Amino acid sequence: MTNSLSQQLACFAARNNEHLEHWLTRQPFAELPLVQAMRHGALLGGKRARPFLTYVTGQMLGAELNDLDAPAAAVECIHAYSLIHDDLPAMDDDDLRRGQPTCHIAFDEATAILAGDALQTLAFEILACGQLSDAGNSQRIAMVRELAQAAGASGMCAGQALDLAAEKKQVGLTQLESIHRHKTGALIRCAIRLGALAAGEKGVAILPQLDQYANAIGLAFQVQDDILDVISDTQTLGKPQGSDLALEKSTYPALLGLDGAQKKAQQLYQEALQALEAIPYNTDSLEVFARYVIERNN
Amino acid sequence: MTNSLSQQLACFAARNNEHLEHWLTRQPFAELPLVQAMRHGALLGGKRARPFLTYVTGQMLGAELNDLDAPAAAVECIHAYSLIHDDLPAMDDDDLRRGQPTCHIAFDEATAILAGDALQTLAFEILACGQLSDAGNSQRIAMVRELAQAAGASGMCAGQALDLAAEKKQVGLTQLESIHRHKTGALIRCAIRLGALAAGEKGVAILPQLDQYANAIGLAFQVQDDILDVISDTQTLGKPQGSDLALEKSTYPALLGLDGAQKKAQQLYQEALQALEAIPYNTDSLEVFARYVIERNN
Repeated sequence: MTNSLSQQLACFAARNNEHLEHWLTRQPFAELPLVQAMRHGALLGGKRARPFLTYVTGQMLGAELNDLDAPAAAVECIHAYSLIHDDLPAMDDDDLRRGQPTCHIAFDEATAILAGDALQTLAFEILACGQLSDAGNSQRIAMVRELAQAAGASGMCAGQALDLAAEKKQVGLTQLESIHRHKTGALIRCAIRLGALAAGEKGVAILPQLDQYANAIGLAFQVQDDILDVISDTQTLGKPQGSDLALEKSTYPALLGLDGAQKKAQQLYQEALQALEAIPYNTDSLEVFARYVIERNN
Repeated sequence: MTNSLSQQLACFAARNNEHLEHWLTRQPFAELPLVQAMRHGALLGGKRARPFLTYVTGQMLGAELNDLDAPAAAVECIHAYSLIHDDLPAMDDDDLRRGQPTCHIAFDEATAILAGDALQTLAFEILACGQLSDAGNSQRIAMVRELAQAAGASGMCAGQALDLAAEKKQVGLTQLESIHRHKTGALIRCAIRLGALAAGEKGVAILPQLDQYANAIGLAFQVQDDILDVISDTQTLGKPQGSDLALEKSTYPALLGLDGAQKKAQQLYQEALQALEAIPYNTDSLEVFARYVIERNN
């Protein structure tokens, strides 16, 4: 990771944390395990790739940072809720996430289910109530629509359902791609689109190019995750190495070999760069992020 | 239940079902257990009290029925998701709901968690995308805000968390009331407020009176539920009789005696009527519904 990207990631992660903290502090029942579990799920660690994408996309298009806080926080709330629920015993049954005990381990299952539920609600509350200075309500509603479509049964939830259906089965490349385009791709694309929507018409005009970029890095993100599950160690990953293998999940290295998976990641990186070439703004941050996606080691 | 109320309930329940059916049919992965489980949770049975309240409140204020379909469906999606998650083994561990196997029994736990998640998302998608003919986007955003605040960690989720924290403990009347005001009251109030918001300024003007009515019937609903858990049988209830007792939950009959609980229900009914007196529209449907709340046997 280049120094400037690592600084930019850290800076936006801190900003995102502060904003989430602001919303979580406003919750009335701070003493309840529910709210503690929401904080655990939303604030502890994580690269904050999605908020980063919202911020840099919006910034590239001239949006005010203050107007990007709400969409960035909303996307992260959806991501955090999905991790809490994916880790549950009935789902992936993971004990470790971001180097910390997962939510149902740190609290209990009922609290983890509820914390995920409430974080999903908070995402929509933040979009409906958060600052969007120049934005009309039509812009807000467009964001609610985007987030709901990315998160629900046509997006992220469908991806998790497709993933569950594929467990302990051999799936082909097309099906694996469909799982990831929904499970992780939809929310990554949404993070970028929300950044663009916050910038108004200029953003709307380049949504197709941004989608192309998002689709490429969204899939590349997953290919690299699969590669890391094979080649990295538990400490670097912050979650058990080899857990895909243990769950008999289909992965890119399993289908294409390690070399083939690495070539696939490279090819997606090139696709991302091509998409950026068609965007008449300073795409440096998005470009550097695309390289990071396929070069990261955790 | 009077004939006219029973007809009105049935009519709006059918309309609500049809509208939910419309949204569920639009889901892209109809073959997945996820979507089947969403249908199971959202379409099978239920009195549809919340959609009813949205419809009659809006209608009373002159809103078009077509503009009430989306808020009524959104509220019911939140209610349906909350039932699916509340029934999970880690929560109340119920096998029977509305006379049917609960979602995790009919499908499996992972699918039930996911179906609840996706129904919550669908609620916000429906508010953001559904028809609201005369309504500006500010009205839509006001509805998203209402629903999020009623459903999340300051509303329904807080109620469920307070309920979990109170399990196997003796709680007093104040605490019991707080549990119910959040767990069920918040969404009932929201159903009424959304109906009012769909009617525009006329609705906004009487929100305080509607809140007073909603708070009274919301609590009365729960008092009656507690009474029925003691005096009714499993077949009439559609869920196991005595399940509150089995979970050692605090209830109104336990705290006040059966007589005391029935007096409490009567008193709340009177409060509801008083609130309606201050409303300068035809409040017949809301009045009949308030009586039904404390006289129903399931």
